Amino acid sequence: MLRTRGDVMNYQQFFEDAVDQLHRERRYRVFADIERIVGRFPVATWHRSAKETREITIWCSNDYLGMGQHPKVIAAMTEAAQGMGTGAGGTRNISGTNHPLVELETELADLHGKEAGLVFTSGYVSNATGIATIAKLLPNCLILSDALNHASMIEGVRHSGCEKQIFRHNDVAHLEELLKAQPLERAKLIAFESVYSMDGDIAPIAEIVALAKRYDAMTYIDEVHAVGMYGARGGGITECEGLATEIDVIEGTLGKAFGAMGGYITGSRALIDAVRSYAPGFIFTTALPPSVAAAACASIRHLKSSHAEREGQQRQAQRAKDVLRAAGLPVMDSVTHIVPVLVGNAELCKKASDRLLERHGIYIQPINYPTVPRGTERLRITPSPFHDNAMIEVLKDALLETWEALGITSQTSSQAA
Amino acid sequence: MLRTRGDVMNYQQFFEDAVDQLHRERRYRVFADIERIVGRFPVATWHRSAKETREITIWCSNDYLGMGQHPKVIAAMTEAAQGMGTGAGGTRNISGTNHPLVELETELADLHGKEAGLVFTSGYVSNATGIATIAKLLPNCLILSDALNHASMIEGVRHSGCEKQIFRHNDVAHLEELLKAQPLERAKLIAFESVYSMDGDIAPIAEIVALAKRYDAMTYIDEVHAVGMYGARGGGITECEGLATEIDVIEGTLGKAFGAMGGYITGSRALIDAVRSYAPGFIFTTALPPSVAAAACASIRHLKSSHAEREGQQRQAQRAKDVLRAAGLPVMDSVTHIVPVLVGNAELCKKASDRLLERHGIYIQPINYPTVPRGTERLRITPSPFHDNAMIEVLKDALLETWEALGITSQTSSQAA
Ligand SMILES: Cc1ncc(COP(=O)(O)O)c(C=O)c1O
Ligand SMILES: Cc1ncc(COP(=O)(O)O)c(C=O)c1O
Repeated sequence: MLRTRGDVMNYQQFFEDAVDQLHRERRYRVFADIERIVGRFPVATWHRSAKETREITIWCSNDYLGMGQHPKVIAAMTEAAQGMGTGAGGTRNISGTNHPLVELETELADLHGKEAGLVFTSGYVSNATGIATIAKLLPNCLILSDALNHASMIEGVRHSGCEKQIFRHNDVAHLEELLKAQPLERAKLIAFESVYSMDGDIAPIAEIVALAKRYDAMTYIDEVHAVGMYGARGGGITECEGLATEIDVIEGTLGKAFGAMGGYITGSRALIDAVRSYAPGFIFTTALPPSVAAAACASIRHLKSSHAEREGQQRQAQRAKDVLRAAGLPVMDSVTHIVPVLVGNAELCKKASDRLLERHGIYIQPINYPTVPRGTERLRITPSPFHDNAMIEVLKDALLETWEALGITSQTSSQAA
Repeated sequence: MLRTRGDVMNYQQFFEDAVDQLHRERRYRVFADIERIVGRFPVATWHRSAKETREITIWCSNDYLGMGQHPKVIAAMTEAAQGMGTGAGGTRNISGTNHPLVELETELADLHGKEAGLVFTSGYVSNATGIATIAKLLPNCLILSDALNHASMIEGVRHSGCEKQIFRHNDVAHLEELLKAQPLERAKLIAFESVYSMDGDIAPIAEIVALAKRYDAMTYIDEVHAVGMYGARGGGITECEGLATEIDVIEGTLGKAFGAMGGYITGSRALIDAVRSYAPGFIFTTALPPSVAAAACASIRHLKSSHAEREGQQRQAQRAKDVLRAAGLPVMDSVTHIVPVLVGNAELCKKASDRLLERHGIYIQPINYPTVPRGTERLRITPSPFHDNAMIEVLKDALLETWEALGITSQTSSQAA
């Protein structure tokens, strides 16, 4: 629909229309303006408006272990800021390689038992430029990508310009079918995640690794929702299952369980050196500030030896699942720390979230399309070690009140249950 | 060249070959491991090896004004870290919109006199996902892109999937030719930079704006190397020339003159809301930590009223140009704070940089292809207000010694002078 004013473009109208469409589809997103409070996580201040603030409890943070408020991590950040300043001052190549970043890369390689690590400005960028660069360096590479891979991996696949084939989510039979149809000598990259963050399920990593060996494919795993939280030292599901050495590239984030910001890949020295040298999204951007690198490094080191956070998270996540289920709430299957509660309708999901925040001071962002398929709209709850038993009770009561008030029934959500 | 071991792929070999090729072309990059020292910028500690450190002077930082060590900026970062923690803990939509980030976006909109601002994890991401999203939202958009646009803008253009035409660098006659050839009612986006960072030249913004009006095109300007440094309040060249309101989208970084990390766009409320709602590189990534947002905000606010940094930078940059030129060194034309010195040969450029660092404790990274065209390899010097007159003398002597020792003459570099 071409809009014109006279015979010229009305550019503004297109942007307004695009936003209007989201309103019509009830998909327009309003960001809650939050002020976290060190020492009181998950309690935070919600800036409801310019004039009004309220105290709320965050139940949807990806600071999964509360490391963002850990005294060691805060001390590392403030000391680096005070000693080295607030920015890197350049790209990695042009004066931006700061010493804490070098230490961080060593720490990450060690975390995953790999020869080398490479830090990017985010997990998103690590996938987008990492996958694209790796695939491009291989001749005529075919990328085999799990159907539920994250947007950043999809972007990496797309930007590689390589042929791609999508295998059904976690479906190794389908993956094998696709692999089998290719010549053994063709370059292939299997890209998948360990923990899928919206459902909380885990990939069949051992089986994928076995297929990769049989059909001579490379493997690239996104451990964004697992690093810090699984494995004896926080090395993720691959550490947990003793498979880290079997995977070619392990990718992760510093912005979730590690409580900071940034992303990374780890792998062989040659692969890392090649990505370092060829990936535009790595080369042409200001490096992570020393303070952020130092914070991430302190967090990783702490979680290598401390198990209290991981145990606390697993305990409280299990308790939340049990309590909500016992109350009759539609907790979806999840084998991990993620507790999705099905609503099954975009408008109801938004309303439930709004009501929880306004009435109950409980903040759980609605998860709607396109993050999850239509009909599977949900509240995605992420209990941390700091969400205590009393908070879980309050959460349960608030959800029950909301389900009742909005008339959310297994009926309204049954399409996808 | 397909390498096989038996009849299977030797993946490792491809990555090794890719790196070897860079060695052969003398383009392999070694990152200097630097530790900045607050209060002593541009002096820093160079980790020459795991065992040896040396004191050096950085002459190639993009912390152009030394704001990364400003007490106000450091205080803002440490206070936010101590009060709100080290990470955002989520994407912008899912619990990651922290209050300092909201304030930062207001500050940025004000800086450029626009209705709204939107912060990304980097300037790279702001261009890559910003340009792509804006162009995609317009029907059949044609992107007109300056030939020397930054890698991140090129990525944005490519990812839009739109038709693109490249106009010769800063060539308004060529741009007009291309515009004229299009129907007036076709959507067009002109993407260009204000200060081009490798040559230090400035785009003819007023003329481009006039063309945009005549041919009804939108304009998108990258002010990454100008924000904080030009204009009465640091609003960049567009502020300096009174053209901010004439440009549709002004993009910038928080990682260079503002001394922190992150990137942004500013524009009309509808445009910003549309990008906020549709750009994958904005939506699916952890938000900037409150500490980084607070640091950037403090820096922007300071530079809105303080002129000392801008004046000091201009003075010392001019002095460096004068002193180096008077000594017979091949300073390239530059109307800005950037002082490029031509070498014209990749290997010599790398050798000069190595010698300056090893012998003279002066750190200037070589700028080689593909960052600049072959034959125009250079040392890119960025004097800050903290590079005093004595340092400029030391620099001049070191460059002269290096030029002499390596036999760099107008001959070796004349190809591109
Ligand atoms: C599976 C997955 N990979 C990558 C990312 C991106 O990581 P980051 O937030 O560090 O950009 C996310 C979420 O943000 C994610 O869920
Ligand atoms: C012109 C230009 N635009 C964008 C960027 C990217 O900004 P950032 O470093 O914040 O990613 C850079 C350099 O890094 C640049 O030179």
